Order: sequence, then structure tokens, then C-alpha cells
Amino acid sequence: MTAFRSIEELRQACLSLPRGDEQAAKAAAARQDVLTKPQGSLGRLEEIAIHMARWQGRPLPTLGKVEAIVFAGSHGVTKRGVSAYPTEVTAQMVANFAAGGAAINQLARAAKAELKVIPLNIDKPTEDFTEAAAMDEADFLSALSIGHEAVSRDADLLCLGEMGIGNTTAAAAVAAALFGGSGTEWVGRGSGVDVAGLRRKAEVVDMALAFHGERLRDPFAALARVGGRELAAIFGAALAARQNGIPVILDGFVSTAAAAPLARAVDGGLAHAVAGHVSAEAGHKRLLAHLEMEPLLSLGMRLGEGSGACLAVNLVRSALECHAGMASFAEAGVSTKDA
Amino acid sequence: MTAFRSIEELRQACLSLPRGDEQAAKAAAARQDVLTKPQGSLGRLEEIAIHMARWQGRPLPTLGKVEAIVFAGSHGVTKRGVSAYPTEVTAQMVANFAAGGAAINQLARAAKAELKVIPLNIDKPTEDFTEAAAMDEADFLSALSIGHEAVSRDADLLCLGEMGIGNTTAAAAVAAALFGGSGTEWVGRGSGVDVAGLRRKAEVVDMALAFHGERLRDPFAALARVGGRELAAIFGAALAARQNGIPVILDGFVSTAAAAPLARAVDGGLAHAVAGHVSAEAGHKRLLAHLEMEPLLSLGMRLGEGSGACLAVNLVRSALECHAGMASFAEAGVSTKDA
Repeated sequence: MTAFRSIEELRQACLSLPRGDEQAAKAAAARQDVLTKPQGSLGRLEEIAIHMARWQGRPLPTLGKVEAIVFAGSHGVTKRGVSAYPTEVTAQMVANFAAGGAAINQLARAAKAELKVIPLNIDKPTEDFTEAAAMDEADFLSALSIGHEAVSRDADLLCLGEMGIGNTTAAAAVAAALFGGSGTEWVGRGSGVDVAGLRRKAEVVDMALAFHGERLRDPFAALARVGGRELAAIFGAALAARQNGIPVILDGFVSTAAAAPLARAVDGGLAHAVAGHVSAEAGHKRLLAHLEMEPLLSLGMRLGEGSGACLAVNLVRSALECHAGMASFAEAGVSTKDA
Repeated sequence: MTAFRSIEELRQACLSLPRGDEQAAKAAAARQDVLTKPQGSLGRLEEIAIHMARWQGRPLPTLGKVEAIVFAGSHGVTKRGVSAYPTEVTAQMVANFAAGGAAINQLARAAKAELKVIPLNIDKPTEDFTEAAAMDEADFLSALSIGHEAVSRDADLLCLGEMGIGNTTAAAAVAAALFGGSGTEWVGRGSGVDVAGLRRKAEVVDMALAFHGERLRDPFAALARVGGRELAAIFGAALAARQNGIPVILDGFVSTAAAAPLARAVDGGLAHAVAGHVSAEAGHKRLLAHLEMEPLLSLGMRLGEGSGACLAVNLVRSALECHAGMASFAEAGVSTKDA
């Protein structure tokens, strides 16, 4: 069973996304302006509070349930030598997630986020997308639907991460398909390839762009043809979040590239999402610029797993604590500006 | 009773600061390199873990007790129209801190930090430093000693913030005294002055630089003559932290300017401190560049109170959770790079 039985059904869902609650956003902004601080002096914390109000649809947004989902996938394109790590690391890291030993386990706990890890048929890699579609429509819709259904409908905030040896190459191909440019403009060192590996990654992306050609113009086709299952699942989860009033924090390059087709398919399609951080992976900054997203953090991280998204959760929590807990000038008997 | 009975005694204390524990730092760095992630992929989180190891003096640093101290002071220079808010707001905000209604109350709670608020003789403003020393030596050493003694010797991390109408002008004067440049290069909008107010701030700084002249060459004299009591207290607290193996998170422009004389008085004097954020206050970025400090956050905040420092605490906590909680490649049975 899949949430979407065809690309057309998916497209229709994307064309009828709920908008943000502008009344809630306005009420939140008005509240920010009377709290005991110079107006605007909490900077992006004020924007976050207003953003959360808009997308949760209430003037006093809350963070009762934070969910972090890590989708894992395997990539046929790894046979072209695009990663510094062997492909079996994907499964090994999924086991590490289950045992609680990975970075994301610690970061989710520190963020008070409930962590779900969802491997997507990792024993069976996608096709090598330099010579075929990574996924056929059924495989794509299945992965996307798993992502869509994975999101708890009562979550207050959703962090989207991934694991998949080879997936920065897939993300680079998706980004190039969506926003133009050749391989060299989008690839980076990933988990740590050398210069030769970096060159191979660029060549692989260029081969994919040439092979699939005009068929990549459709954002859904791009994700299916040169993406991967964990990217499709992230897309599905970002869509489900939007449909259920759940703001999203994207993670690094792969997470952002996976969700990006939603912004290409419909204007404002990712307006409910923020970038938790800007990764050290070369293409991420460029991708965020295309999406007009200003990352919350810039700490030179390049791990994936949802690490940067979870790290940003406590910023959101702090923003909401200020929003809900601060006294107004009137309540506190503090003189206002130039009073 | 004061911790320091003379500037000379203070100077001697600054010249015999303990160094960091390089063995602990080295052990922490070695641990980071075997954890289940590509080496360096946690970016500054890895640096933070190593920094905390160095200054706490243990390979596995902890955050049991986080202390946030907000010092408040009143400034004679406010009579020159350098703030958008009336001077009584300092006392009103101290009352707001006590009642739990300010931003810092929410941010300290979100950081699991114990908040101390210490007003420094706020009924009696310092002298107008355009025509006299803000503090005489006794007043300066008293404020500095209060800050020095305020630090809990068993804290694992210390956040230093302030409140004081007029104190961005004092901070600009201190920064100019320490690093050169005229008023216009160091002043900013503070809590929100208009263009005329900004011009007055620059003039006031220039008047102070002209009045005190060469006497500002000594970093301690600069802090006493054109600083303020809360700035002196922050200096004292930063010094006490260094002497007691407590890493420090500085806040915005005022907090950083207050601690900066320690870096000028002795090479590496602020090596135990990190900048929690870069403030929107114009001079802060410039000041951090002089101090060669890379801020952890950049969120357009300009509130003071220790808000940016407390906001950064959860980044440190997350870094230490990864450092202590992650499995090694060997423990998790994950293949290493190119294995």
C-alpha cells in the first residue's frame, strides 16, 4: 500500500498544499513587540517564534513532541567509486543507530527529540543512475509513501536526516537537475573522498545529466531518476509535515536536496521548512541560496544523519520559551523606549 | 573586602594565569578521531569538545553545573543622550530578572543554567567618562572583585552577561582604547538609538578618548576609566573562571569588550573563552576579529543579558554528548574509510 499510487496523484497533492496561518503569525509578531526587550533584539529567535506560530497554526506554538527521522538507502552508483567508505557502512550505521552509538543518537537526546530510523530496502541498492533510472515509478512511490507515513501526525516539529553511502552524489545530481549547473558545481568531498574521487563524482553527475536529459525537467522525475530511496522518503515526510501543520527542520545537503523538489513543484512548497545548518559540503550553500533559505547554524558540520537539524532544535525551543515565558513591558512595569 | 587590593596585584594575577591542559586536549582529539563518523565531520562540535577538555582539564569534559551571571550597572554617561531607553530601565530590568520575566530567564532555563543576577550599586551611576574616570581605583577593584567572587568554583561552564542602560557606549570606548579606532568605528544602535543618537554616541567616545588620552594604554586603566561596574565585574569573573578551570562563554559586544582587557594584558588571556554569538551591534564583529574569536552563533541578536551566551550552551552540551556517548568504529563494528 502506498500513500500515492501515481506521480499525478502526488503532483495533485503538492498543488493543494495548505498555506500558513497568517493570523497566528500576526498575533505572534504582535506579542514579540511588547515583550521586555528592544523590538527585534532577539533577531532570528523572533522570526522562529513567528514561523512556528504560522505553521503550527497557533499564536503560542509549543514543542511537546519533536520527531527526528533518519531514512537510510543504498545506491547503485557507489560502484563508480564515489564514496570514501565501503557500501556496507550504510547497514553498519543503521545497526549503530539502533545501538545508540551514532552522533544522531546523542544529538536527538540532547534535542529531546524522538528518533526513528527507517532503512529502505538497503540490501537492494537502487540502479546506477548513470545508465538507468535509480528507481522506477513503483519503487519511487513506495519509498516516498513510507516517508509520508512515517511522520507522526501529532508531532510539533520534524527533523529530517539520512544515511546512505553514495548519497551526496545523488543529492548533487538532483540539485543539478533542479537548478542547473554541471557536476563540478554541485559535488563535494562527502564523507571524505580525495581529489580523484571528487573528479569521479562530478563525472558521474554529468553522465547522469546527459543520460536522463530533458526527463529531469520534472522535479518528481528528477528525484526518482537520480535521487535515492532515502531522498524520496524525505520528500514524502516533508510533504506529510506540510499537510499536517508540522514545521520542518532540514539537515544538510542531502536532506535539503531531497526536499527541494517540493519548492520547485509549487511556489512556497518548502515555506514550512527551515535549514538547521549550512553544511561544509560544497553544494549546500549554493542550494540554500537557490531556495532562499538562511541556515540557523554554520558550524562546519558535514555528517548528515539529521545531525545539524537536531542541533538546531534547542534554538527553536529557546525561541519558543522566550516567546511564551517573557513578560510584557506593561506586566513587568518596565519603561518603554524614549518614555 | 576585595579580591584585589591594587591594580598591581591584579596585574600580577593576570601574568600568572594557568595554561590549558594539553594532555587532556590531546586525549579528547584522539577520541574524536575514532568515533563513528568521518574525521572532522562534526566540525566545531569537535573543536568544542577539545576546548572543554583543555580548560576543564579532563579528556571527558562534563556540564553538570552551568552558571550564568548577569551583572548590572548604571552609567553617568547616559546624561549625554546615548540610549534609547531611560536610565531607570536598568533597575526595572533587574526586577524583571528577579521575577523571571526577561529573555535571559527563559534562555538560562532552556540551557539548564543557574542564573545569578548581581546589581552593582545601580542607584549610584559611575562618573560621566567624558569628563572624569568612570570609576576610581577603589570603585573599579570593588566591582571587579565582586565579579571575581561571584563565580562558583565548582561550575563546569560560565556564561557572562550584563544589563546597563548606556553600556554599549562604554563598551565602544573600551574597545577603541584597547584596539584603536575612533567612535564611529565602534558604536552601534545599542537598544535602538536613532541616527542622531548614534552620532552622539560616536562623539561621546571620541570625547572620552581625547580626555583620557595616553592613560587608556593600560588595559586595566581603560576598563576603569571608560568602562563601567558591570564590565569590571565581567572581567573579574572571566579571570576567576580561568584561575579555577572553568571555560567561559562570552555574550555580545559589552560582555566581550569587558573581558577583552584580559587578552590585551596577557597573551592567550582569553583562550578559555568562546564567543557564544556575534551580535547585530556593529562593533561586535570587529571586536571578535581583533580577538581572533569565531562566534558559535550568528542570529542577529542584540539584547545582551547573556542571551547569546546561554543560547550557545546547548551547542556545547550537544558537543559533549557526542564526545562522551558515541561509539568508536571498533566498538560498533563499522568499517573505516577505504577499508
